[in-house]
Amino acid sequence: MKKYIVELIGTFWLVFCGCGSALFAATFPDYGIGFVGVSLAFGLSLLTMVYTIGSISGCHLNPAVSFAMVSASRMSLNEAFKYTLFQVLGAILAASVLYIIQSGSVHTEIGGFASNGFGENSPMEYDLLSCFLTEFVLTFFFLLIILSITSSNAYHKFSGIVIGFSLTLIHLISIPITNTSVNPARSLSQALFAHVSWPSEQLWLFWIAPILGGVLAGFTYKRFLQ
Amino acid sequence: MKKYIVELIGTFWLVFCGCGSALFAATFPDYGIGFVGVSLAFGLSLLTMVYTIGSISGCHLNPAVSFAMVSASRMSLNEAFKYTLFQVLGAILAASVLYIIQSGSVHTEIGGFASNGFGENSPMEYDLLSCFLTEFVLTFFFLLIILSITSSNAYHKFSGIVIGFSLTLIHLISIPITNTSVNPARSLSQALFAHVSWPSEQLWLFWIAPILGGVLAGFTYKRFLQ
Amino acid sequence: MKKYIVELIGTFWLVFCGCGSALFAATFPDYGIGFVGVSLAFGLSLLTMVYTIGSISGCHLNPAVSFAMVSASRMSLNEAFKYTLFQVLGAILAASVLYIIQSGSVHTEIGGFASNGFGENSPMEYDLLSCFLTEFVLTFFFLLIILSITSSNAYHKFSGIVIGFSLTLIHLISIPITNTSVNPARSLSQALFAHVSWPSEQLWLFWIAPILGGVLAGFTYKRFLQ
Amino acid sequence: MKKYIVELIGTFWLVFCGCGSALFAATFPDYGIGFVGVSLAFGLSLLTMVYTIGSISGCHLNPAVSFAMVSASRMSLNEAFKYTLFQVLGAILAASVLYIIQSGSVHTEIGGFASNGFGENSPMEYDLLSCFLTEFVLTFFFLLIILSITSSNAYHKFSGIVIGFSLTLIHLISIPITNTSVNPARSLSQALFAHVSWPSEQLWLFWIAPILGGVLAGFTYKRFLQ
Repeated sequence: MKKYIVELIGTFWLVFCGCGSALFAATFPDYGIGFVGVSLAFGLSLLTMVYTIGSISGCHLNPAVSFAMVSASRMSLNEAFKYTLFQVLGAILAASVLYIIQSGSVHTEIGGFASNGFGENSPMEYDLLSCFLTEFVLTFFFLLIILSITSSNAYHKFSGIVIGFSLTLIHLISIPITNTSVNPARSLSQALFAHVSWPSEQLWLFWIAPILGGVLAGFTYKRFLQ
Repeated sequence: MKKYIVELIGTFWLVFCGCGSALFAATFPDYGIGFVGVSLAFGLSLLTMVYTIGSISGCHLNPAVSFAMVSASRMSLNEAFKYTLFQVLGAILAASVLYIIQSGSVHTEIGGFASNGFGENSPMEYDLLSCFLTEFVLTFFFLLIILSITSSNAYHKFSGIVIGFSLTLIHLISIPITNTSVNPARSLSQALFAHVSWPSEQLWLFWIAPILGGVLAGFTYKRFLQ
Repeated sequence: MKKYIVELIGTFWLVFCGCGSALFAATFPDYGIGFVGVSLAFGLSLLTMVYTIGSISGCHLNPAVSFAMVSASRMSLNEAFKYTLFQVLGAILAASVLYIIQSGSVHTEIGGFASNGFGENSPMEYDLLSCFLTEFVLTFFFLLIILSITSSNAYHKFSGIVIGFSLTLIHLISIPITNTSVNPARSLSQALFAHVSWPSEQLWLFWIAPILGGVLAGFTYKRFLQ
Repeated sequence: MKKYIVELIGTFWLVFCGCGSALFAATFPDYGIGFVGVSLAFGLSLLTMVYTIGSISGCHLNPAVSFAMVSASRMSLNEAFKYTLFQVLGAILAASVLYIIQSGSVHTEIGGFASNGFGENSPMEYDLLSCFLTEFVLTFFFLLIILSITSSNAYHKFSGIVIGFSLTLIHLISIPITNTSVNPARSLSQALFAHVSWPSEQLWLFWIAPILGGVLAGFTYKRFLQ
């Protein structure tokens, strides 16, 4: 049970910090953290959690990671569903606290929350193909990196730094395209609390693309890189 | 005695660098460091001190950390009060040097110094509940991370990186909400030198919320994660 | 064969992330990542790949690195050509995916893509001598750093951090001068897809200067620093 | 002789990257790296050199560091003067290459180069006392950090990260005050090439304050922290 609890706690932290930085601090006038700051926040939330709970649950915090572990033959499908359940719960809890906090200022609004979108809901209005490709390629490489470093004896202790900064890197590239998901639990949690309907309508892409990318990375790693 | 001296020195550094970056460099026209730079400064001041004095005192630099060590049964209450005393002294010394430096330019003013506030003194005017929740949740996780990594044999040498960057992360999220405390000594030192009265009037929140969050993290860690 | 495949994969990632961050996110209004973000993206793409494929191929991802390995007597000339071939293929593949993604928004244009240039095509119109000197000096030091750390027993595990951040550092300095190459494969891949002709006409500089700098570093390291 | 050569090479890199980032990239319109980028550049140039030449010369790259090693009884005074000579030579060489590059664009001017100043030549016009205090306190702590980590068996391999990021931190705070020196060789090299006279006239402060701070840190460390 402990591993499920820490997946919930860890995913809470990832969503609270990553999406929280976007909601509270990215667009602050003149001194706000912008996309660089949001990228750092997502990456550092993962970095800190890998070193905090990594030895208990593996610190997935992301259904795309858990299902990739299945395709890489490191986890059972049944276990991946359980992990996903607790990740989604943690993400929703975080989103609910973010919602309460964000409701406490007259200068802010909920709007689309920190949701992911494509087409006219992409920050720069990238079309579906561009958004799918971006999420797919980035999650594919995210998982190659994770699968490789976590099975390396030499570099294992650097896992948190490498995996955390790979998530920072992914956000540096793709916030203008999809607002960056690569994590279905993160996308779902924001869509639930948004005051508009497009995040829920477009949520399917942010389950399919990351999980496809992750699962393919699992097969690729097992077949070619192991 | 050596451990108390280094807590004073370390807290001096944390407040001098963190609050100093906010006072001197955050709002410099066009090229200023903004909230990203202030977040880095707080984090790197802690990172550097963990590697400098961590083996002497544990490098708390923060009453919320010391009292969390009590609830996690790693320190006596008496010792936590002594640590707090020297942390507060170091923070006040730093604030006094910052005050002298900041008084040396006609282009700057002391105003609220780098104080923490809520309600109309929150940078984005977040209300008391939002500010309490933010400080509480962030300090809670800050301490979970600290308690976990400092008791890990495998990752112990990465403590400075992980703890330092967790403080960077916390600032990336919460400067617009409370100007980020998570550290009662830091808040007190700024309130003392501010040229306005609200920092002192609102100081209670930045002792209560961080210490509550830290102490609860200590219990939680001891009970569930150890 | 495995080492060639991972050089292709790794160079794909370097170009996809580095040039992608420049194309998609650098100039986003108000919240874009600017040159700091692009510098981080190039560096972190290399950092993550060193820890992912470094033990397989050495993670060159750059013909200037491979030819420097020849002058440092660590690789045969024949092997360097093979590495270069797969690096160029990976870079072109990445550029083609970037091209598809970037074509998916009405708010973006291909223009010069993320090409390198000098003279009137330098972002700040630095002349040929300044551009040559910059690329030459930066690649020279880039290789001194790489050659030294990869042959150090004490620091070997930090290679990814050191080499990755050295590429971040190089970009922090030189984006306004040449848009930063230090990597002929990266330059070629962008010139191929640009909608203007100057990137191809000026491509020669971004093969000659980095390779000269790298090869000289190889000799210097072998002779004086080993 | 090898250790003197690498001090020259290393100081070249520090000045080339740190001052170069300030000259070329800090003030680029809209996308420039600002003070955060310059801070990162100084820090990463030191980080990379510690891992490249640290085992040969100790990687001082700074007369204030060398003289602190004397007061901490780790180096002879005679040796510190030799180190200083080669550091100054490396810094001047770097400044001369920066001068050539910067002269290659019609959009740039040499002006004060990347010089340090106080009073009306402080970026925010901080007075002499503020500037002295800032340089003194920052160099004092810079050396406490350096002296501590380089004598730690447990953390020695993290030296480059800790020392490099401490220099980043120092710049995050003090660029608006003195343009940040903490390094007499760096200050001298810029004053030599400036097209105005104040950098030479004010150079004395940037030899006295950093060296005083460093030397006092050496005594303090030896007496209280060792």
